[in-house]
Amino acid sequence: MSQLQRIAIAPSQLQAGEISLTKEQQHYLARVLRLREGDRFIAMDGKGKWWLTQLVGEQGQVLEALVVETELPVSITLMVALPKGSGFDEVVRCCTELGVTTIAPILSDRTLLQPSPQKLERWRRIAAEAAEQSERAFIPTILEAVAFSSSLSFANSHRYICEARGNLPHLKNCLQHQGQMTNDQELVIAIGPEGGWTQQEIESAIAAGFQPVSLGRRILRAVTAPVVALSLVSAAFEV
Amino acid sequence: MSQLQRIAIAPSQLQAGEISLTKEQQHYLARVLRLREGDRFIAMDGKGKWWLTQLVGEQGQVLEALVVETELPVSITLMVALPKGSGFDEVVRCCTELGVTTIAPILSDRTLLQPSPQKLERWRRIAAEAAEQSERAFIPTILEAVAFSSSLSFANSHRYICEARGNLPHLKNCLQHQGQMTNDQELVIAIGPEGGWTQQEIESAIAAGFQPVSLGRRILRAVTAPVVALSLVSAAFEV
Repeated sequence: MSQLQRIAIAPSQLQAGEISLTKEQQHYLARVLRLREGDRFIAMDGKGKWWLTQLVGEQGQVLEALVVETELPVSITLMVALPKGSGFDEVVRCCTELGVTTIAPILSDRTLLQPSPQKLERWRRIAAEAAEQSERAFIPTILEAVAFSSSLSFANSHRYICEARGNLPHLKNCLQHQGQMTNDQELVIAIGPEGGWTQQEIESAIAAGFQPVSLGRRILRAVTAPVVALSLVSAAFEV
Repeated sequence: MSQLQRIAIAPSQLQAGEISLTKEQQHYLARVLRLREGDRFIAMDGKGKWWLTQLVGEQGQVLEALVVETELPVSITLMVALPKGSGFDEVVRCCTELGVTTIAPILSDRTLLQPSPQKLERWRRIAAEAAEQSERAFIPTILEAVAFSSSLSFANSHRYICEARGNLPHLKNCLQHQGQMTNDQELVIAIGPEGGWTQQEIESAIAAGFQPVSLGRRILRAVTAPVVALSLVSAAFEV
């Protein structure tokens, strides 16, 4: 099973056991993956459903629904201040591999760059690819970029904001001691830009119920920190 | 203190409280960092010693030795099968930020690419830069690439080999239960190439005392896995 190729489909593509493949998907299956008539692949809808599927002409014929066990049992929202350059591509790719549920690109006081709609499309494509490659059942949601101050209200969640400096408790220890999460709770982790959050941002976050935490004594780059945080979260909740 | 710029020096550059700066370092300090006569910076020898230093002509005058607390209390050797392309640059950069002591590039059965001497120089430069930026006291050692089979003997160490598939214990749990390490012990973590280790490599590693472990249920890319492993190790041993 693990050797079969995976493609992500929109739920609307599947009707009555038939998946109508887009031109791009047909090209990918036939030219890139070199599948032939009757070959099998896995279609995933990005919402937790996988189907074993057979290539029949320009369609996929569903053979059976599959059970997957590659998702974490908790919902994780990662708020990441947008770094300059293309660093966010790697953040999206790595954090998708690590099981993130939602990524919220954040405009912070120290990074005001509003990304183009093309960027957002690009990150969503990267998330879909990384979900396939890492054999996830879900494709993470990439939200549109918003200002940090307007994105701080989360009901029913454990909230952490990572800071590079200061004598703060380590995220790992906080996760260990936060106690069991209920099914409808989520985990929210905020990671700052190069140069860190401003004092005012930290204070707003604390007022909104975020706990300031450390990722260790060394100074991590803005693109490394989300991967480290997600590594700790995945390991803490992996079943 | 944290605002001062850092440069890495060779131990031989320091004699009787004077650091004789190379042409490159002079250029870096004066042109890139824009330091002027009498300005202060930090010189680090990559072996745990830092000095507060003042720019005097083409030399650095040592003002005082500094105490640093950014190093992990254990020695960590990361064996990484060389990925194709430039992925190893990021592995070196991120793992240096996370506190690695030694990185051993590995030629595995599935990646036989012998890197050029230029590559090795490049990785060492990246490690030095990343050590500076992350405010480490040590610059990790980057070894020359060797075959996996000839690099398996480690005296007095805890050894783990990461595998993508199979029902294996999680590295995090193994680290938690391995017990206290003594001062002269080290931790060795081996990470495979895209496509994984061969069965024979796994068996040789087990015979050499490596314990097979998992980094989670999702399939990580070869360049993500070392960062995830180091994140868990750093968090486990951070004081």
